[in-house]
Amino acid sequence: MFSFELIKESKECKARLGKIHTNHGDIETPIFMPVGTKATVKAMTPEEMKELEAQIILGNTYHLYLRPGHELIKEAGGLHKFMNWDRPILTDSGGFQVFSLGNLRKIKEEGVEFRSHVDGSKHFLSPEKSMEIQNYLGSDIMMAFDECIPYPASREYVEQSIKRTTRWAKRCKEFHENTENQALFGIVQGGMYEDLRRESAKQITDIDFPGYAIGGLSVGEPRELMCEVMDYTVDLLPKDKPRYLMGVGSPDYLFEAVERGIDMADCVLPTRMARHGAFFTSRGQLTIKNAKYKRDFGPIDENCNCYTCRNYSRAYIRHLFNENEILGARLASIHNLFFLINLMKSIRISIKEDNFMNFKKEFYDNYGY
Amino acid sequence: MFSFELIKESKECKARLGKIHTNHGDIETPIFMPVGTKATVKAMTPEEMKELEAQIILGNTYHLYLRPGHELIKEAGGLHKFMNWDRPILTDSGGFQVFSLGNLRKIKEEGVEFRSHVDGSKHFLSPEKSMEIQNYLGSDIMMAFDECIPYPASREYVEQSIKRTTRWAKRCKEFHENTENQALFGIVQGGMYEDLRRESAKQITDIDFPGYAIGGLSVGEPRELMCEVMDYTVDLLPKDKPRYLMGVGSPDYLFEAVERGIDMADCVLPTRMARHGAFFTSRGQLTIKNAKYKRDFGPIDENCNCYTCRNYSRAYIRHLFNENEILGARLASIHNLFFLINLMKSIRISIKEDNFMNFKKEFYDNYGY
Ligand SMILES: [Zn+2]
Ligand SMILES: [Zn+2]
Repeated sequence: MFSFELIKESKECKARLGKIHTNHGDIETPIFMPVGTKATVKAMTPEEMKELEAQIILGNTYHLYLRPGHELIKEAGGLHKFMNWDRPILTDSGGFQVFSLGNLRKIKEEGVEFRSHVDGSKHFLSPEKSMEIQNYLGSDIMMAFDECIPYPASREYVEQSIKRTTRWAKRCKEFHENTENQALFGIVQGGMYEDLRRESAKQITDIDFPGYAIGGLSVGEPRELMCEVMDYTVDLLPKDKPRYLMGVGSPDYLFEAVERGIDMADCVLPTRMARHGAFFTSRGQLTIKNAKYKRDFGPIDENCNCYTCRNYSRAYIRHLFNENEILGARLASIHNLFFLINLMKSIRISIKEDNFMNFKKEFYDNYGY
Repeated sequence: MFSFELIKESKECKARLGKIHTNHGDIETPIFMPVGTKATVKAMTPEEMKELEAQIILGNTYHLYLRPGHELIKEAGGLHKFMNWDRPILTDSGGFQVFSLGNLRKIKEEGVEFRSHVDGSKHFLSPEKSMEIQNYLGSDIMMAFDECIPYPASREYVEQSIKRTTRWAKRCKEFHENTENQALFGIVQGGMYEDLRRESAKQITDIDFPGYAIGGLSVGEPRELMCEVMDYTVDLLPKDKPRYLMGVGSPDYLFEAVERGIDMADCVLPTRMARHGAFFTSRGQLTIKNAKYKRDFGPIDENCNCYTCRNYSRAYIRHLFNENEILGARLASIHNLFFLINLMKSIRISIKEDNFMNFKKEFYDNYGY
């Protein structure tokens, strides 16, 4: 059974501490959720994810529906068993991906008709179909099928879009039956318009979900605008439900989100950067292919205690990337995931000690933000 | 200090049990040695190699000389420290690679002039240079710089070649100073000519090395011919020194070599096959992309106890390969390396129990050889 426990509200800002209970274990919030798009967090084993203290990971409805197919995963015993991960899983609705397909998709009231980016085959994704797929996958947290509004978007377009997102959210809730094991979150849209965010939040919270996401942010708008929208949107959400900011994963965005009362965030950034040899460090981003690291026998980040930093030098990791060795992507993924997971752990401690704003300032100073 | 201990000779055949002592630990023979060409066993961490009970790995002189350079590795504290592997390392001489460069190389008495396959830059590799590189790498076992004779080769060519290999072997031994920490092995050549193998073995063993390799086998000749050459060549080597068959790693070749008195073998096969989704199994080779495994929720090999087979299904691994996920190559590498390392462990037990020939027959029957 799913529930959310609000443990503490910061005295300094809207940051808060909480705990989500699921059938596959608890999740301490605020939390960063690594993404395992195609039933694997890229380059990592589930055991390594546990060593990094990952408490929940994401799976992707669109990709898993196309390959290997949600029926096959159901046959395998669900996504947890298929990929050998027994902690909580959150699945997105597939909406973001089909809307991103551009002229490969056609939006109708019933749902979205689209062609696969893999082989061009024709498919149809609707609120009901998304619920069916996520039910077959067996995730602990499912997301309602919504329209993610791009940036920028006209007021007229956003007005129409949030109404459809509300109608689709209702259909999702009606179709969703496995409420005992799978919690369905609603998604608030509204672009960068305060009154439309307010309208969407009202409509979505009226349907009543066990958790809410803020969608349509971190889609290309400046950081200040994202912060502004969060400032007023978070206040529109009930305090006793978890709040999830979708698609956010850089250190500064995580700080800004937590400060404004966000409990959950996800992003492919740490593993994607890793495959390109880019590292988060306490002193800013580091690109390992840079020639100045050729004879640098120190660790990626001297303040980091991850497996990579404890055992390997910049010179060695640079060599691995120059040679396209798989171990390079592995060591980088371990470090970047550790960095964000550990950052969130430190953030939770700072909230507990009412020291969040000070911790944020120190981090920004060192990182060079 | 390097030494070899002969523990037992089989009553059934020339197979034998032994133990090699090095400064970085002991090696039980007969042993399969995984290859870490560019200072990494592809897709694996050193800790994973230890979990698989790998006792020694190979490094490649040619590749490491070109990138990142042997001076850089020396600066890093040697190859062990650079790649975070504290067990024994064997390095080849670089000879095999430069001779394989075809018209990018020119053979002289002094050594081989060649152009890098990476950037076309000009280089020179000689017995002395090979010793210097391997000394900088700091391997526990070094190989003499020899000419690997291709198959087929004319008698006249082989006659000239083995004489040069002997002259080069002498120069290697003369130049090699760090004998306390690094054991230098001689290499017997001679193509597929019994009298020339005899001549080469006589000359190389007269120089006196702490171990000997048989080179120029498994270079395209039929299995029967390789066995025939081994039959008479192994007898030309002293019993109290380890015997190393270079470049052999398929299960049948390992059995045939051990039966004929070989103590050590190496091959890139298990990790190379792994990256293409090909698996050793107790019932023969398995290609995971085959459509018949799409809904196969059993393990790769039901008789295997490796991490991959304990936790993942054929259907899942097939999905990973279809999606080019790094985890696919990782799981396959773990299984294939485990398979060969574990096979050699079983072979050692069978020799101990004088049951080798029976074990070999059973394995061949199941594998389909
Ligand atoms: Zn680190
Ligand atoms: Zn296995």
